[in-house]
Amino acid sequence: METQKEEDFVKPTFDPHSIEPELIQKIAYDALVWSSLHGLVVGERNSQRSGKVPGVAMVHAPFALLPMSFPESHWKQACEAAPIFNELVDRVSLDANFLQDSLSRTKKVDEFTSRLLDIHSKMLEMDKKEDIRLGLHRSDYMLDEQTKLLLQIELNTISSSFPGLSCLVSELHRMLLHQFREHLLLDPERVPRNNAVNGFAEVLAKAWTEYNNPRTVIMVVVQPEERNIGREAVAVIYFRAGYAPTDYPSELEWRARLLMEQSIAIKCPSISYHLAGTKKIQQELAKPGALERFLENKDDIAKVRKCFAGLWSLDDTHIMKDAIKRPGLYVMKPQREGGGNNIYGDDVKETILRLQRAGNEEDAAYILMQRIFPAVSPAILMRDGVSHRDQTISELGVYGAYLRNKERVIVNDNCGYLMRTKVSSSNEGGVAAGFAVLDSIYLV
Amino acid sequence: METQKEEDFVKPTFDPHSIEPELIQKIAYDALVWSSLHGLVVGERNSQRSGKVPGVAMVHAPFALLPMSFPESHWKQACEAAPIFNELVDRVSLDANFLQDSLSRTKKVDEFTSRLLDIHSKMLEMDKKEDIRLGLHRSDYMLDEQTKLLLQIELNTISSSFPGLSCLVSELHRMLLHQFREHLLLDPERVPRNNAVNGFAEVLAKAWTEYNNPRTVIMVVVQPEERNIGREAVAVIYFRAGYAPTDYPSELEWRARLLMEQSIAIKCPSISYHLAGTKKIQQELAKPGALERFLENKDDIAKVRKCFAGLWSLDDTHIMKDAIKRPGLYVMKPQREGGGNNIYGDDVKETILRLQRAGNEEDAAYILMQRIFPAVSPAILMRDGVSHRDQTISELGVYGAYLRNKERVIVNDNCGYLMRTKVSSSNEGGVAAGFAVLDSIYLV
Repeated sequence: METQKEEDFVKPTFDPHSIEPELIQKIAYDALVWSSLHGLVVGERNSQRSGKVPGVAMVHAPFALLPMSFPESHWKQACEAAPIFNELVDRVSLDANFLQDSLSRTKKVDEFTSRLLDIHSKMLEMDKKEDIRLGLHRSDYMLDEQTKLLLQIELNTISSSFPGLSCLVSELHRMLLHQFREHLLLDPERVPRNNAVNGFAEVLAKAWTEYNNPRTVIMVVVQPEERNIGREAVAVIYFRAGYAPTDYPSELEWRARLLMEQSIAIKCPSISYHLAGTKKIQQELAKPGALERFLENKDDIAKVRKCFAGLWSLDDTHIMKDAIKRPGLYVMKPQREGGGNNIYGDDVKETILRLQRAGNEEDAAYILMQRIFPAVSPAILMRDGVSHRDQTISELGVYGAYLRNKERVIVNDNCGYLMRTKVSSSNEGGVAAGFAVLDSIYLV
Repeated sequence: METQKEEDFVKPTFDPHSIEPELIQKIAYDALVWSSLHGLVVGERNSQRSGKVPGVAMVHAPFALLPMSFPESHWKQACEAAPIFNELVDRVSLDANFLQDSLSRTKKVDEFTSRLLDIHSKMLEMDKKEDIRLGLHRSDYMLDEQTKLLLQIELNTISSSFPGLSCLVSELHRMLLHQFREHLLLDPERVPRNNAVNGFAEVLAKAWTEYNNPRTVIMVVVQPEERNIGREAVAVIYFRAGYAPTDYPSELEWRARLLMEQSIAIKCPSISYHLAGTKKIQQELAKPGALERFLENKDDIAKVRKCFAGLWSLDDTHIMKDAIKRPGLYVMKPQREGGGNNIYGDDVKETILRLQRAGNEEDAAYILMQRIFPAVSPAILMRDGVSHRDQTISELGVYGAYLRNKERVIVNDNCGYLMRTKVSSSNEGGVAAGFAVLDSIYLV
């Protein structure tokens, strides 16, 4: 007989609601102390100075006390898909006609997309080529309970958020599982190490190296006031802002974006990468035959397609009929980032009917997506120093890093992950907006 | 001709008030962000939940924006003195009669010292020997401007505070000097690396190893509610509380302290170490011939004595006369920790006269000390996200770590440092009390 391995004594899965309140209190205390000491903090929403003055009015970032169980096979699937999505974005970005054609109707009804397309057109006119291309993406997934499929929610090609805090939460969970191992009987090694923040930094540094001018800097474009470029030459521009209409309060910002796009600096993302990450393009790529236009390898195509949920434009009359009949099975998504919330349930039906009555092209501002029903799991959510038990659903994001110089692919890899968990009764899901908490995964 | 070394280009000293406001703002911003991300945080004093719930209502610890210039020779002197003071405390702790005799008058007027001496007496009665002795001390100094002497303020043998935050401030300053090197022209390497927190952890771990029972734990006695010992055997008891009368609100706490002292666990500090660190003992050791009772090496004696400020008991009539005549040259210090503030200026005179009129033994509750007038230096203090320029004075603490098992000295070393800087117009000096800020030193 084989000897039993140590990991056989570790529980394959667990229910955090079964943990005794006294133990939860202890774990929560240690977790909160750890958060304070390791920078797992954010500005307090209630404080006026928060976000303006760093170092004041800080509170731990909202987090799940323990990692969420997640099937190892789906985790591997998401990691394997990351470099393929990186490559796909790169190929799509090179197909200017595809981008312009796909977004031609959206352009008419969405001012923001229209402005981005204008910049894209200007680059085409001046025949601007990006030799060095840098992508820091994040593909977000939910696990559909009925079909057990890992389905892509969206692919972010600009300003993929939380590479820093997500790493800290993984570390926190590994620490807690180690610290309370005797009580929890969970194996810390089953929480995958998260290298998102170092991975991002490394590939930014590699892009800078590729630019090959030591007298240059990496510029990070951020949301608040400052956009202080100074007099240094810029090798890499990382957009941590610029994805939302509110990031362009005046023509000044659009001119700056154009100026940066025209420059020889490496953009992360370029305007083409940015457009390749729009919901409309996501929907276009889900059409039969679309992936084949950009990828050759059949395995790769199959892996990407496997992640695609049902995606339709609103001129698909067959699907529209079904959506009016069974609106609960669909989500309507506005094309614009930050341009409004998703539409669920009966509002789907009413919105479609309203758009059909209007008869204009406003329908091009939306895409329709199959509604995903993820498994509901018990979790303990930590917010403002207090623990709450609740039933939750989760969304896994896997970061991808891509760097190429002409024909030479320098980096093409997955690059850490972000797990977000939210109360299952809420439709909205932002961590920053206060609906979700940061989480990590426990492979089962 | 010799080639000039790079460090020749570095300024030997600097005036932070000469830095342009714009640059200060940039440095302050980076410093505040760094603080948030590296755990240089404390609970906000104004928040009710602060100190009770970790992870909420946090603010950066108050700190000096840039390190304070400090003569390298004095820094070396303080580091060299640390192991001698470690040894001195150990020797004094073994001389029960010296401790009891020196504190006999204090015992009559100070309930707290009296209770500590009672525990000490009980240990003598049961002939309790501490084979393994662990000390984590901090000797505090000020640099007297007129005499250019580094004079000891006090020697802490219990609950030496800030080993953690002081390390972070040194790191912060090294980072800032590196980051803004082109503007500040200061050499980050001149801020000594601070190993206090790791040093403390290491010597605690070594004490645990010396105890030689893997089924034991290190217990940390802290100030708030919890004193949860659980069922584990305790190898090492580290007192982070127990130094102030308020730490013993009832007989329960005194019984617990006695119980711990009676146990075979290694105490940091033992009751003898604790008593050896009292102000009265500091004053007794400053008497002619006292050091010779405990140390043999003449160099060591000279090094320790060099640090001693003038120290007297209040039954020294000659000095009392002078203190009444020139009260500004003296400080009256209550023996008790947390038992009241130091007395300065005309209050010294009035208090002496009051005590002399009373004619009881209350004078034994105080010692008199030469007032040290440290150099006043410009500094930029960061508090609550805001920078203030001010004229300041500083106090340097050098940590010492000591571990011995019978005749075998396992550790005897200096162990990092703490620099505290406060506005020169304030007599009181606590960081936690809001008067001082954490600082580091820049060797000149």
